[in-house]
Amino acid sequence: MSDLAFPHRRYNPLRREWVLVSPHRTQRPWQGEVNQASGFSDLHYDPQCYLCPGNTRAGGHTNPSYESVFIFDNDYAALLPDSPAPGATASPLLRAEAERGRCRVVCFHPDHSLTLALMSHAEIEGVVDAWTAQYNELCALPQTGYVQIFENRGAMMGASNPHPHCQIWATEHVPDEPAKETEAMLAYRSEHGSCLLCDYQKTEAGQGTRIVAENDEFLVVVPWWAVWPFETLVIARQHLRSLADFTQSQRAALADILKQTTVRYDNLFETSFPYTMGFHQAPCKGGDHEEWHFHAHYYPPLLRSATVRKFMVGFEMLGMPQRDITPESAAERLRAVSDTHFTRR
Amino acid sequence: MSDLAFPHRRYNPLRREWVLVSPHRTQRPWQGEVNQASGFSDLHYDPQCYLCPGNTRAGGHTNPSYESVFIFDNDYAALLPDSPAPGATASPLLRAEAERGRCRVVCFHPDHSLTLALMSHAEIEGVVDAWTAQYNELCALPQTGYVQIFENRGAMMGASNPHPHCQIWATEHVPDEPAKETEAMLAYRSEHGSCLLCDYQKTEAGQGTRIVAENDEFLVVVPWWAVWPFETLVIARQHLRSLADFTQSQRAALADILKQTTVRYDNLFETSFPYTMGFHQAPCKGGDHEEWHFHAHYYPPLLRSATVRKFMVGFEMLGMPQRDITPESAAERLRAVSDTHFTRR
Ligand SMILES: O=P(O)(O)O[C@H]1O[C@H](CO)[C@@H](O)[C@H](O)[C@H]1O
Ligand SMILES: O=P(O)(O)O[C@H]1O[C@H](CO)[C@@H](O)[C@H](O)[C@H]1O
Repeated sequence: MSDLAFPHRRYNPLRREWVLVSPHRTQRPWQGEVNQASGFSDLHYDPQCYLCPGNTRAGGHTNPSYESVFIFDNDYAALLPDSPAPGATASPLLRAEAERGRCRVVCFHPDHSLTLALMSHAEIEGVVDAWTAQYNELCALPQTGYVQIFENRGAMMGASNPHPHCQIWATEHVPDEPAKETEAMLAYRSEHGSCLLCDYQKTEAGQGTRIVAENDEFLVVVPWWAVWPFETLVIARQHLRSLADFTQSQRAALADILKQTTVRYDNLFETSFPYTMGFHQAPCKGGDHEEWHFHAHYYPPLLRSATVRKFMVGFEMLGMPQRDITPESAAERLRAVSDTHFTRR
Repeated sequence: MSDLAFPHRRYNPLRREWVLVSPHRTQRPWQGEVNQASGFSDLHYDPQCYLCPGNTRAGGHTNPSYESVFIFDNDYAALLPDSPAPGATASPLLRAEAERGRCRVVCFHPDHSLTLALMSHAEIEGVVDAWTAQYNELCALPQTGYVQIFENRGAMMGASNPHPHCQIWATEHVPDEPAKETEAMLAYRSEHGSCLLCDYQKTEAGQGTRIVAENDEFLVVVPWWAVWPFETLVIARQHLRSLADFTQSQRAALADILKQTTVRYDNLFETSFPYTMGFHQAPCKGGDHEEWHFHAHYYPPLLRSATVRKFMVGFEMLGMPQRDITPESAAERLRAVSDTHFTRR
């Protein structure tokens, strides 16, 4: 595959879009922005943190002295359960619709200094159980079309607080990203009679060059079509449509694979690796969604080091995504690091 | 339109996607990342800058002592004119194609300290003339499918050098963004018998609430479907498909409107306002593209102040774009500032 050493484009069959791959572009000198590396805190409790146990939040509520997972409704929710429908506008080019929903915050742990990479297997399993209960509960509401669970990790990724937590936004409509994936998975299923990610998972397991981590239930790859330098895709080996389909041992396996993935990320640049991650799974309405295959996307911004990120700007925003190293070389580097966290060796 | 004071979604007919609008979400307290404000340099010549006249670039070439616009081939190009075609892969899910092309750098001015907002009308007109010549020259090459002209302004937007410059990437295929717009404009034309952006421009001119600036040839609005807090769309009033269709007075009018827009941006937070901007125009091949309507997108990251940006992360990357203020309030603020640059008053 030495011909992949030159600029080329690769196709993402999940979003049905292209990415431009320009290997070796990191050889150019960098005089641009250098961020602060994100270190670990040794503060187990921060009196200023509105997510720590016992503290009062900006909205005026007081957190309980929680000891494991703690979930509450976002005090500054981007979605409300009862927004009115917008009225008619002067033109069909000015189209608006109501979007009702709920926003929740899930604190993973009372200890302010932890991250998923540093939490124990049992603690992460508790988080997976909580996500499952939330998915089931929110999906069952008549108003919910989709449940998006996501984590913004690190100041570079807009996290407004380092306390280990994620968010859940449940929307009335299926947002564009999972809607695109639904269409792609439906089209693949009707064309091939099989599931897109089942087939892709087998291809990657067979090739091996893009694998980062694995266990009995999950495979983690830098996908063929990765956009971010160290982007990964966590794919269930079985055809599971959503967290609702998981057995307890599959939930435990998810906890294991998330820990493996985040530990490798932290070890790559010996930093608390920033990322946005989240699960894509079956929408809540519209049938049994046999076409859907549960997966997680990790979108981390770093490129050269703990302080120099990839900027998805000019050409990427106006044209198409572009990456500076191959997915294969990124996977090789993530495979090469230890699976024990660098701070715990 | 008070019902637009609640969370709702708006439709972007150019990309055929939705954006979630959550007005007043900026009321939540911000404990996240605070960037450095980008000030102006008073260094007219920087011996370390590889774009200043007479200096040697990283690639080893020496810049001439240029006095107006200076254009050269990018020393670390993401595209090459003669990349080989990738060979066959093991699976149709691993799809790659050659992407050949050219990357150029356009220095706007020899003076290191300037930006478009600070350049004279005549100087900006010289830049517009250079863009036009580049579009014509690159489009005429048999290999070129599309010419993307874009500017990354400011360290926050990944600009690796503050010297006033932009880039041009000419690709073999039409990248996904202009390809999506082509499809939307074609579909609109066949459904309505008219041009999408001609119709939209008239609607916005009639309403007025989203207008930021205008002259005889161009209208600048915060579009109904803006994603970034202070995103703007520069629309030609006439049905011009590309820079190739412009008269000299239309090029002068484009120079004028770009200056008006960047001056207002700088004045908003009294800073050198960071942004990514670029032109979308007719592809180079495949007929006369009567459906195409020339426009420019400005995507600026700032939200609250010169130092606090909007993060398009978690929900935005995994679900759909979300904004925290209405386009109408953003336009009102950009209209309210002076059209004279704050450093020149
Ligand atoms: O080419 P530059 O200015 O060095 O680099 C900048 O613009 C490119 C094109 O949008 C991006 O791919 C890079 O991530 C960004 O840092
Ligand atoms: O909700 P938070 O953590 O305050 O905010 C963060 O995540 C949100 C959801 O992705 C984004 O809209 C915000 O821009 C980001 O700063």
